[in-house]
Amino acid sequence: MTGRAPNRNALWARTLADELHGAGVRAVCLCPGSRSTSLTVAFDEHPDVETFSHLDERSAAYFALGRARRTGRVTPLVCTSGTAAANFHPAVLEADRGRAPLLLLTADRPPELRDSGANQTVDQEKLYGDAVRWYADVAEPEATPRKLRSLRTTAARAVAKAEGTPAGPVHLNLPFAKPLEPVPVEGDVPEDLPELAAEGRDGAFVSTTPGHVVPDEEAVHEVARALSAERGLVVAGPADPPGPDPEALTALAHATGFPVLADPLSGLRFGSATRVAPVLGGYDGFLAGDGVADWPDPEVVLRIGASPTSKPLRKYLADTGARQLLVDPAAGWREAEFTATDLVVADPSRLAAAVARHVSGPSSADWRARWEAAEAAHWDAVESVAAEEPFEGRVLADVAELCPEPATVFVSNSMPVRDADRFAKPRARGLTVLGNRGTSGIDGVVSTALGAGSATTDDLTLVTGDLAYYHDMNGLLALSRCDVDATVVCLNNDGGGIFHMLPIEEYDPPFTGQFKTPHGLDFSHTEGLYDLTFERVDGADREGFRDAYAEAVASDGTTVVEVTTDAEASHRIRERLADEVAERVAALD
Amino acid sequence: MTGRAPNRNALWARTLADELHGAGVRAVCLCPGSRSTSLTVAFDEHPDVETFSHLDERSAAYFALGRARRTGRVTPLVCTSGTAAANFHPAVLEADRGRAPLLLLTADRPPELRDSGANQTVDQEKLYGDAVRWYADVAEPEATPRKLRSLRTTAARAVAKAEGTPAGPVHLNLPFAKPLEPVPVEGDVPEDLPELAAEGRDGAFVSTTPGHVVPDEEAVHEVARALSAERGLVVAGPADPPGPDPEALTALAHATGFPVLADPLSGLRFGSATRVAPVLGGYDGFLAGDGVADWPDPEVVLRIGASPTSKPLRKYLADTGARQLLVDPAAGWREAEFTATDLVVADPSRLAAAVARHVSGPSSADWRARWEAAEAAHWDAVESVAAEEPFEGRVLADVAELCPEPATVFVSNSMPVRDADRFAKPRARGLTVLGNRGTSGIDGVVSTALGAGSATTDDLTLVTGDLAYYHDMNGLLALSRCDVDATVVCLNNDGGGIFHMLPIEEYDPPFTGQFKTPHGLDFSHTEGLYDLTFERVDGADREGFRDAYAEAVASDGTTVVEVTTDAEASHRIRERLADEVAERVAALD
Repeated sequence: MTGRAPNRNALWARTLADELHGAGVRAVCLCPGSRSTSLTVAFDEHPDVETFSHLDERSAAYFALGRARRTGRVTPLVCTSGTAAANFHPAVLEADRGRAPLLLLTADRPPELRDSGANQTVDQEKLYGDAVRWYADVAEPEATPRKLRSLRTTAARAVAKAEGTPAGPVHLNLPFAKPLEPVPVEGDVPEDLPELAAEGRDGAFVSTTPGHVVPDEEAVHEVARALSAERGLVVAGPADPPGPDPEALTALAHATGFPVLADPLSGLRFGSATRVAPVLGGYDGFLAGDGVADWPDPEVVLRIGASPTSKPLRKYLADTGARQLLVDPAAGWREAEFTATDLVVADPSRLAAAVARHVSGPSSADWRARWEAAEAAHWDAVESVAAEEPFEGRVLADVAELCPEPATVFVSNSMPVRDADRFAKPRARGLTVLGNRGTSGIDGVVSTALGAGSATTDDLTLVTGDLAYYHDMNGLLALSRCDVDATVVCLNNDGGGIFHMLPIEEYDPPFTGQFKTPHGLDFSHTEGLYDLTFERVDGADREGFRDAYAEAVASDGTTVVEVTTDAEASHRIRERLADEVAERVAALD
Repeated sequence: MTGRAPNRNALWARTLADELHGAGVRAVCLCPGSRSTSLTVAFDEHPDVETFSHLDERSAAYFALGRARRTGRVTPLVCTSGTAAANFHPAVLEADRGRAPLLLLTADRPPELRDSGANQTVDQEKLYGDAVRWYADVAEPEATPRKLRSLRTTAARAVAKAEGTPAGPVHLNLPFAKPLEPVPVEGDVPEDLPELAAEGRDGAFVSTTPGHVVPDEEAVHEVARALSAERGLVVAGPADPPGPDPEALTALAHATGFPVLADPLSGLRFGSATRVAPVLGGYDGFLAGDGVADWPDPEVVLRIGASPTSKPLRKYLADTGARQLLVDPAAGWREAEFTATDLVVADPSRLAAAVARHVSGPSSADWRARWEAAEAAHWDAVESVAAEEPFEGRVLADVAELCPEPATVFVSNSMPVRDADRFAKPRARGLTVLGNRGTSGIDGVVSTALGAGSATTDDLTLVTGDLAYYHDMNGLLALSRCDVDATVVCLNNDGGGIFHMLPIEEYDPPFTGQFKTPHGLDFSHTEGLYDLTFERVDGADREGFRDAYAEAVASDGTTVVEVTTDAEASHRIRERLADEVAERVAALD
């Protein structure tokens, strides 16, 4: 901190910024407002904290979430009092379910003005209910040693809680009375404040040593015994940020000989570790039909991460009689088919590393070969269909193939993540694929992607549908205000294509008006509004898309490549492709 | 209901739609989603319920709020499970503080899938905390007489609670298990269901007779005695929807002889009742300086509605030693200066009508003349400055003068409502001015305005700043999807002009980067995106604006008239004008 603070609010806010920095914070998202002035000034003047300014709090929160998802670390969010804080709520829910650290710093009126009819005042206490890991209504600013020590401690606790196990949102509600600006207030900050309270320590006031959840030796042996089977699988669902250690997981797969069914968001489908063990990405295709109906069941399944994106996989797991070990460091229970037989409370990477040394394997080569053959059949079928038929899935296949190394690819709900699951082929070149699978909303997608991009030097691609693009169009303002570059692939099928996958398709009306909801938005006008180049490609023109995408990736600045597609036709092709894969797989035996 | 429902979910949803219609619901806002399918289908097929389809739930909620604000009646909101429901939260807070009825129908997973890792599932129980008047986690659909009767009763209760005293949001969380679509399910809906459960009654299952909060005779006399004074004021803050009865209030003002200081959102500043009593709108100007420093204090102030928008008025009231009677039917306490001496729990219109018959007045003609002279001085000064100087306030003056009768004018926070307060002159021609003053956010402004417009045949004008226009740009999709026409006046000063009114203006940095936040958005591109005509007018060209506004009002469809202004210069003119008014008022004595 530079110089004596002009008043208690400035001292308070500086102290908070200082301790958050001490706890590892290097960037903050700020939303303009009056009540939060002291916080904004303190972060803005901090020499080692980068600031990202956002005008829409909903987008701001998803931007911070994107950074958290990419890094596993907190980027605090600051807003003024009132509805601003409620705009954070969707991202808070995603951070809760998706286990991403988020730190909400909401400025508030002082207690006497709450529920008083005062302007821009709402009940911010416990605003996010049980969705946060920790809530504190912080004391009013005061330049006394105990209060300042409590604030310093609160900052350390907040970051430790948000980044703990499970990671998630933390909410500090911070009341401020006027003056909010750094105007000098005589006597507000005593000159003789003890140095420890006024300046804190060199470095953090409280250093946090994070703990890791590990099983004891006996449990390691028990898991190893369970995995010493002929037929087993490792199923990796969407990862909790910052994701598992691919080496540890594929080493275990190698030791057991089990195929790894790797969700596109698992952190395991792409990268050099895929060379070590059979990492499969075609299961969403080849488990969908009855091609595997005659296969023997697996004896054991080791499950890590959240519930897999793939419905065929979830159904397959629910229908097997296999022993299913769910590994979760937070003793959470992300298994909506209720077929797990064992809960192993452990960090998956640490467990895998420990268990790999003790399994007696590898297992049946036949079993592994069966899965690898089905995997190959799936990708062959995808390739032959994608070469000929215009459908949405091949865009995901192309992006996963063409994006450079290293790249971060963010995939929206609802169809892009499903298409990534089925059509993004495992590759050994590095690639981080992210999505908001905690709550699977289509809100905040643009901002989450740009936030993730702001936290890395990776090349950034966002693949989104038109509804998600519309829903968070405001998030595009970050391109200029937060200086992020991206390639945005917008699959525009003019409405909710996913509803073609659901039985409601058969009921029209209300299908078109209330579900498919064609909107007719011409997104080329976002070029003029925001700092981007807009290209439109016909979904039938595969080479056109591949060229446009490669060019967009290679060029500076942000390009939106809009691919116009037909949702219904795409869905029919997905169905046909699934049938073809099932046939090929059935023919393998 | 037409024919037997194909399954229990369809029956459940139809029953709810049917009873909501019985409780007076004539329109509903639907957001596309899967979990809410049964509800959407039921409302869509109801012959007497209009549907408004929205793709962004945040905008949808504000649209429903706008209808509630204009009519005082509920327009239910339907969304799917997950973050969709959290997007309603900002509007829920505004509905709570602004006492507008809102009914949130959030579809949810069935209980066993909550916190199970299931897709698109969050903890929706009590999602909005204490902000709602009533929350119910509704039973799972079942075709049994008791459950169906409970649902019919719940619908009636929900509307009665939302439209009760104080009006506000009500949240029904509705779990549905598959199948969500109207597919026939054998045996799901018994043929022998009693008619009362299956079909309800002719008309509502439960008819609600609303109650009114009235004082007893003794209290009426006591208030009348208090108001039988020489020097008194009636202060009307922003109204609770649907607003007070202007005749009753101005009749009381006439009987007492007290001036009415009428907030632009009070429902009293405009309309024929202003002919009955001195309704003043210039107080925000003439109380701001020290022109009234030598005036005698009022002896008594009768206050209705929420806390006034005008800070000078709030300060004036806080500084007087007057007896202050706060009238509130909900025993709320919207008086953040803590200077009220009496709380009268009563409906303001009914109290006014009762009291007017008993006051002995009218009071001092000198007192009234003093206020009327100050009022005249204010408007003279405004007129002479507005004729010459380009500043934002004169846009509000022009809109209030030029908008046709009847018109609904929605004014955004943060500057437009303040400028309406100071520069929108009382007029006898009918005019409804609305704003979101419950929480004074700049979010959801476009949607609230369009929702209000959708509920009336009035001509609709929205006056907004550029930040609020940006924040809810998504709301513009309602122009085409919900078939609303408006004239949108967008005062574009490229950022947060209101911060020029605050001390932070003196600190740059961070003033420009973190508070003023110029964004450079070229809103002309919203013409191509949405169903509107875009006109840009230089704020210095008064006749140009008046012509463009008049033309926009006269034409079909929606025109956005963007007025480019200079926030800082405008603020300097506001300050100069305040000085001039103070001088003129001081010279009156």
